[in-house]
Amino acid sequence: MSLENVTHIDNVRLSDGGDAVVIIDQSLLPNETKYLTLSGREELFEAIHTLRVRGAPAIGVFAAYAACVLAGQTRETSYEAFYRRFSADKAYLDSSRPTAVNLRKALDYMDDIVRANAGRPVPKILEAMKSGALKLHQENMEMSQAISENGMELIKDGDGILTHCNAGPLGTFHYGTGLGTLFLARERGMTLHAYCDETRPLLQGARLTTYELQSAGIDCTLICDNMASIVMKEGKINAVFVGCDRVAANGDTANKIGTSGVAILARHYGIPFYVFCPSSTIDFSCETGDDIKIELRDPSEIKEKFFIKPMALPEVKCYNPAFDVTDHALITAIVTEKGICRESYTESLAMFKQPAHPPR
Amino acid sequence: MSLENVTHIDNVRLSDGGDAVVIIDQSLLPNETKYLTLSGREELFEAIHTLRVRGAPAIGVFAAYAACVLAGQTRETSYEAFYRRFSADKAYLDSSRPTAVNLRKALDYMDDIVRANAGRPVPKILEAMKSGALKLHQENMEMSQAISENGMELIKDGDGILTHCNAGPLGTFHYGTGLGTLFLARERGMTLHAYCDETRPLLQGARLTTYELQSAGIDCTLICDNMASIVMKEGKINAVFVGCDRVAANGDTANKIGTSGVAILARHYGIPFYVFCPSSTIDFSCETGDDIKIELRDPSEIKEKFFIKPMALPEVKCYNPAFDVTDHALITAIVTEKGICRESYTESLAMFKQPAHPPR
Repeated sequence: MSLENVTHIDNVRLSDGGDAVVIIDQSLLPNETKYLTLSGREELFEAIHTLRVRGAPAIGVFAAYAACVLAGQTRETSYEAFYRRFSADKAYLDSSRPTAVNLRKALDYMDDIVRANAGRPVPKILEAMKSGALKLHQENMEMSQAISENGMELIKDGDGILTHCNAGPLGTFHYGTGLGTLFLARERGMTLHAYCDETRPLLQGARLTTYELQSAGIDCTLICDNMASIVMKEGKINAVFVGCDRVAANGDTANKIGTSGVAILARHYGIPFYVFCPSSTIDFSCETGDDIKIELRDPSEIKEKFFIKPMALPEVKCYNPAFDVTDHALITAIVTEKGICRESYTESLAMFKQPAHPPR
Repeated sequence: MSLENVTHIDNVRLSDGGDAVVIIDQSLLPNETKYLTLSGREELFEAIHTLRVRGAPAIGVFAAYAACVLAGQTRETSYEAFYRRFSADKAYLDSSRPTAVNLRKALDYMDDIVRANAGRPVPKILEAMKSGALKLHQENMEMSQAISENGMELIKDGDGILTHCNAGPLGTFHYGTGLGTLFLARERGMTLHAYCDETRPLLQGARLTTYELQSAGIDCTLICDNMASIVMKEGKINAVFVGCDRVAANGDTANKIGTSGVAILARHYGIPFYVFCPSSTIDFSCETGDDIKIELRDPSEIKEKFFIKPMALPEVKCYNPAFDVTDHALITAIVTEKGICRESYTESLAMFKQPAHPPR
């Protein structure tokens, strides 16, 4: 897989007929590259829930397409019945992963479109939904490029960058968020050294991030999550780059479990810690990280998934939060498509505030 | 497996005939309980190197027994030839794991015994070696009990204790080092809540620690290493208890990879961080942690071992240090069989200093 392929990968798209969503099944990578064509209500839900599609921006666009596909299956002709059915699908899809704000925002965005077309014939509403979802996809691609561009001022040739989880082309679009700057730097002839936390339990760092970086010819080294401290101590890391799933109004940031620990280590070793995300990831309805609901997932992901044999006895309890919240005080800067925000985040993020249900 | 079984488990012993070392193969736990009878030079080396026997105290006693077994196989009758053969075996066994000081100390201890018997008939030397190794084993059992007893003043009923890697009966003797106080507390009717880091890449926390705790009826919850931050933040943890492999004269401590990260998190959240070890683990020949050689292990442990399929492409590089060094400033106290040491460690540890090649 070449750089061209990786950064222009079709990780999520609407099928040619518009009646299905086509994705790469990320849960099978890196051993198998398999595309799935999804149109059933349950299989669309399941694709998000089981992380076949993952990464905050990818989930958002996927949900918008899924809403189009499900709306296209309705036999309702009255607007009221159509909207009831849409609302039920929206609530169902929204429950697939509680932490990623892009999921809810994308569904709210589709809701706005439907309501803006209230009373029009159903085919016209479907047309507007499809065109809105395609626009969201396009905007996400442009955002990813702008975020990656803005990150360029934070690196210099030869830097070592620690990453956690996956914030590259597979979970976003085109370049990525947290990884985007690395791809852009590579295109511009810079040499960076990436250290990738494997990111237990689902190993997105091992399975997806190293796959993307290696494919693009970016020097990368895989480590276990608990090795972040030693590589920082040994001077291998100049900065930490991560994506995120939700940012509260005060800058507290929910991202993949373990991110807060990496931020604390970075602070201890005096290494800057940067969060990369579209401004749409900021959720002004959350004042602080305490308002962010953390998804708890199944113990089998820790004890059994991926393993030849279970790694603990059946009666052993597990605690498996999918995300944690990094305190804003530990974040050096939040890099968005509109610019780089620093403390006080309550002020610097507020400039992105838009009316309720913004069209993105 | 009952509490009785766990804390009195025969993890390492000399065979009845004295011609082999018998161990539980820890690499197969928790799915399989298999005892191995080892007498070949390579298989004794391999048992340490591949972690069939692991845990600093267990490795030390195993090495002493292994030295006896190999010495018993010699056909040399002159002391000089016998000692040359012993020295070669010693150097070979010592190279199986470079970080654990108990390995080298146990072999030095056997060396002292051999040299103290210089010139005596080989059977007499063998007798002295065997009796010395059995004494070392007995002393380790008593030490484990004393360490566990000393830890009792650091806990109170209902406490949550975070552990990393495995420092229980399997890697030590009887109660354990880092876990010993939990077993003792349980015997005395206290209720503690253990949170066990799974400890990648070899998952000693998942495979061994939860096995020991669960078997003894101690409430335990398995987490991935990168979840230590969130459980601390949520107030679930009152103290961190870990064992260790080598302590420098200034208190810098080498333990399983990831320990230094846990210590930094504990400091961030204001949680005490305790290291438990026999005083024999202090290596006064290391002034600071910078003098401790860190073992680098095979990338396959990160990418392939335990997994159904590889978790990263073959060409992806891995960095796999087996240990890291926790700065003494992050350690609240070091708990030994002789008492609890606190800063300044250079002074508090120095009282354990003994002449070169101490008989332990």
